[in-house]
Amino acid sequence: MSSNYLNFRNTIPWLILLLETLFIVRSYFLFLRLDGQYLLPGSYPEFQDVNHMVIFGFGFFLMVLRRYGFSSTGFNLLIIVLGVQCSVLVEDLFIFFYPQANEGILKSIEKAIISMTAVIISTGAVLGKINLVQLIVMTLVELIVFYVSRWINRTFLEVLDHLSLMHVHLFGAYFGLAVTGCFPEPSPGLDKNRSTPKSDLFSMLGSVFLWVFWPSFNSLLAESKTKAILNTYFALAVSAVSAFMLSALAAKDGKFRMTHIHSAVLAGGVTVSFVAESISHPWIAMILGLLGSVITILGSHCLQSCLNLPLKIHDTSGVHFTFGLPAVLGVLAQVVLLVVREWTNSSSLDYLVLLHIGAFCQTISVALITGFITGSVLNTRLLKIIPVSKYFEDQIYWEVSLNVKL
Amino acid sequence: MSSNYLNFRNTIPWLILLLETLFIVRSYFLFLRLDGQYLLPGSYPEFQDVNHMVIFGFGFFLMVLRRYGFSSTGFNLLIIVLGVQCSVLVEDLFIFFYPQANEGILKSIEKAIISMTAVIISTGAVLGKINLVQLIVMTLVELIVFYVSRWINRTFLEVLDHLSLMHVHLFGAYFGLAVTGCFPEPSPGLDKNRSTPKSDLFSMLGSVFLWVFWPSFNSLLAESKTKAILNTYFALAVSAVSAFMLSALAAKDGKFRMTHIHSAVLAGGVTVSFVAESISHPWIAMILGLLGSVITILGSHCLQSCLNLPLKIHDTSGVHFTFGLPAVLGVLAQVVLLVVREWTNSSSLDYLVLLHIGAFCQTISVALITGFITGSVLNTRLLKIIPVSKYFEDQIYWEVSLNVKL
Amino acid sequence: MSSNYLNFRNTIPWLILLLETLFIVRSYFLFLRLDGQYLLPGSYPEFQDVNHMVIFGFGFFLMVLRRYGFSSTGFNLLIIVLGVQCSVLVEDLFIFFYPQANEGILKSIEKAIISMTAVIISTGAVLGKINLVQLIVMTLVELIVFYVSRWINRTFLEVLDHLSLMHVHLFGAYFGLAVTGCFPEPSPGLDKNRSTPKSDLFSMLGSVFLWVFWPSFNSLLAESKTKAILNTYFALAVSAVSAFMLSALAAKDGKFRMTHIHSAVLAGGVTVSFVAESISHPWIAMILGLLGSVITILGSHCLQSCLNLPLKIHDTSGVHFTFGLPAVLGVLAQVVLLVVREWTNSSSLDYLVLLHIGAFCQTISVALITGFITGSVLNTRLLKIIPVSKYFEDQIYWEVSLNVKL
Repeated sequence: MSSNYLNFRNTIPWLILLLETLFIVRSYFLFLRLDGQYLLPGSYPEFQDVNHMVIFGFGFFLMVLRRYGFSSTGFNLLIIVLGVQCSVLVEDLFIFFYPQANEGILKSIEKAIISMTAVIISTGAVLGKINLVQLIVMTLVELIVFYVSRWINRTFLEVLDHLSLMHVHLFGAYFGLAVTGCFPEPSPGLDKNRSTPKSDLFSMLGSVFLWVFWPSFNSLLAESKTKAILNTYFALAVSAVSAFMLSALAAKDGKFRMTHIHSAVLAGGVTVSFVAESISHPWIAMILGLLGSVITILGSHCLQSCLNLPLKIHDTSGVHFTFGLPAVLGVLAQVVLLVVREWTNSSSLDYLVLLHIGAFCQTISVALITGFITGSVLNTRLLKIIPVSKYFEDQIYWEVSLNVKL
Repeated sequence: MSSNYLNFRNTIPWLILLLETLFIVRSYFLFLRLDGQYLLPGSYPEFQDVNHMVIFGFGFFLMVLRRYGFSSTGFNLLIIVLGVQCSVLVEDLFIFFYPQANEGILKSIEKAIISMTAVIISTGAVLGKINLVQLIVMTLVELIVFYVSRWINRTFLEVLDHLSLMHVHLFGAYFGLAVTGCFPEPSPGLDKNRSTPKSDLFSMLGSVFLWVFWPSFNSLLAESKTKAILNTYFALAVSAVSAFMLSALAAKDGKFRMTHIHSAVLAGGVTVSFVAESISHPWIAMILGLLGSVITILGSHCLQSCLNLPLKIHDTSGVHFTFGLPAVLGVLAQVVLLVVREWTNSSSLDYLVLLHIGAFCQTISVALITGFITGSVLNTRLLKIIPVSKYFEDQIYWEVSLNVKL
Repeated sequence: MSSNYLNFRNTIPWLILLLETLFIVRSYFLFLRLDGQYLLPGSYPEFQDVNHMVIFGFGFFLMVLRRYGFSSTGFNLLIIVLGVQCSVLVEDLFIFFYPQANEGILKSIEKAIISMTAVIISTGAVLGKINLVQLIVMTLVELIVFYVSRWINRTFLEVLDHLSLMHVHLFGAYFGLAVTGCFPEPSPGLDKNRSTPKSDLFSMLGSVFLWVFWPSFNSLLAESKTKAILNTYFALAVSAVSAFMLSALAAKDGKFRMTHIHSAVLAGGVTVSFVAESISHPWIAMILGLLGSVITILGSHCLQSCLNLPLKIHDTSGVHFTFGLPAVLGVLAQVVLLVVREWTNSSSLDYLVLLHIGAFCQTISVALITGFITGSVLNTRLLKIIPVSKYFEDQIYWEVSLNVKL
């Protein structure tokens, strides 16, 4: 009976079929012809970098669980392609109503892939605890809510379109945390949510992979690309160095902990995501990279005892300190740099600062509230919740030939 | 004696030396100077994408066997570099006789790498059953036959040069099947040709890697690159989604089977390879991606019982349904799209349809016939056939320090 | 006590913090503003290729030891980012004194990454025997010495700037050998410095990865990029083929040895690094690729018994024959090609040959002498030498959850 309870044959295929039919039908009615796409902006090599990074890099990065390698990589691919199609068609719908916004399909796909990063980050928080039906529902809800949140930011809070996309880390992390808060915690003695040296090595390779491609990610939609690339590179360099420094300081015996390195090498890239294209002096990017790394490693120590235990939140791959805290720091940095830059021009300063803080509060509160609602809805009997004892298992979804796993 | 029987020291090095000497000597006499190469077409980043995809991606992709990881990756590199040199020099010879065809060496290498894909696909069918001497002979024969088949297509059947190269999947799959049909089947109880979760994970990563680079592959020689990229991307997206849908439907307990995902995520890219640059509406590419995925998963179920068992064909990594059937579907789609497009212009329609079907029949029959002949020749005592009990073993070719393997 | 002896908590973090503070302070005072960087040369896709190759590829490539996977990958990232920052700031200092040399920050980073290759190669020789403090000190010393050696080459020996960077392989290999000569050898019965099939597979994948990106490396700073790419590609192709040929010849039973393949497939790229942009006929590059492969495999047999045993040098990942010997061959090829080309113009020939040989002797002797001094200094009690019994262990540096390792 239990096995029957977790048989997804009657749900997953039909859900996917429904969505895919919807996408194809929409594409039939709404899509512009491809013939006019050549002169529109969007260049393939940059797109390819980000595509490679998100699909291959995050697939590797999420391989932190010992018995969950197939699902981490496979479902990452599945939800990205579902989400990108969904996102492109939401954008199409928008173009249908506001024809002036047409920017070319390649640009739409680029934006869709960046939006999907929010979903992948949220996935990191609920990894192994949420089944595939719930994951697909979460993907669609999160994409639409993120689109609405961006629309509010652009329309009412004067955030530029490409900067509104840089809220992915913030939105993804807090949405994921709110969702995972609604799910029961795994029992503390459970062995399956620990990493093995092999899964650690894979996820470390994933981190290195993401590290290499992060400048492409931050500069994809930036206006001054070279600046965005250089600042991101410097911030990443400093945060990689600081990750080792702080990890050795944090342990009594001076040993590095893989979780620290895994998270903190990327902190610089997340922290500078808002300001990469406007920093003129690399030392500012370097300081931000250092602070990003500090907050990530402090976070990985404090959050577990101060926040997760009392609130009963279980954050599988630590997205709160890997992406959430550095993104908060990034917003703070954005405001501070704005204040420094516009100090003389005090008339508009208050207004601008208010807009920035407004965009931050709007994004984080929408993420937390809708995440909590989504989590509560997902956690109903209807969607075949996985029992806690079956958490972090590939075998629920995959035909695994042997019991020996990665 | 058995060990002596499989000692390749007297054959492999001399065969390789002979070929390499031939290549260098040819290169000495025939090669144009590099100085004139700069103004000729062919751009490095695109070349690099496809080079990376074919060498690294297929090396990963073929890692499906538990005890054959070294050979899968290593021999993939070896035959690609041998084949590319052979192919470039065949092209050179052609330039020598028809000087107007000169397109630059970078372009020649690009074409050579795409041609080599046919050989790699054939390798997938005989993986682990064919020794390295046989593999090298097969590579050379297949490359030359494919070159002749392309030449017939271009000269007599009016197929454009870059479209004639897109027959690689079709040619490679059926050549490989015909070759593998001549080899004895492994005994059914053999454990070594099963995959382990680890080899599954590696080959899954290979699939994802190929998925990411497939738009570069399909657009490398296309005339309207942006269109080819976008259509391939949409087709791949839909086939990745459908792969999960159909895999869950195909199993009674709704679980995903790694073989399905492994093959079907790529089906869309193969299916649209002929028409990617001429489709104006993405929904057509999406439908083709869906159909490609359906035919791959249906194929993986039916072929085993309907075709492989009666004909005693053993297709190690399932190239028939991974590359063969989607390519057949792609040709069909090409004809249907042609009929729809040229419906009003019925005078030339019959002729064009006939040309397309002729090219298809010519390619597949040349592949099957020469594949069968090649297989029969390879399967003689001269070339040191591997006994069935030694199939799928790295240890025949490599000094393996321990018995524990991937 | 022994555990306390190897506790790096009081050294590593403070050393890294000191360096990083220095970099940020320097960056504050010396760095030019980023605003002026856009019109300067240096293109991102090429930079990204080399960045990806050095960080991800060498991280994989160095994974030859069974219990040293975390350190190979992690410390590779750490020392590259430390070294690049150090190198950029040395360059900045130079620009401060000689303002005309300013070439843009992206170009500086490109040069810094190529310089770092010397350090990574040296790391290969001492892998697992040197602790992280020693490694960081070695990185800084080697970078500065290499910078001085390049400066001598450029100023007194008329070597072009981008060719002086191609001495990285030569310098890195002999510096590393001199350093490792000062460290005690591991006991012969030690099991931990053997590779396992899994670590072999990983490092093979690393080799293939480097193979794919080597043309980008050799052409990054070349004046005629297309020529450098094509010649490197041909040299690599021949050396990959010859690697298999010679490896089968070298073993009595005709089996391939992974160490041979691992090293010799890259030999061609190293050999042509000096002459890739000046060879007009690909057959010369092909011959050089063949010779590079021959010297690597001969080297891997002879060096162990003729040089390493008598001199008590232990070269963990065989950098002497992988990078050192092919680089020596490359210099020889450069001289021979120069003689052939300038034969008619005998007045300046002697002078030019003398300059080339001078640059070679200067580089190799500086590498050996400073390497030996560095090794002696590192090998003092101050820097917490690892006892021989703890060689090749991740557990000294990392919190490893289980004893089972890669």
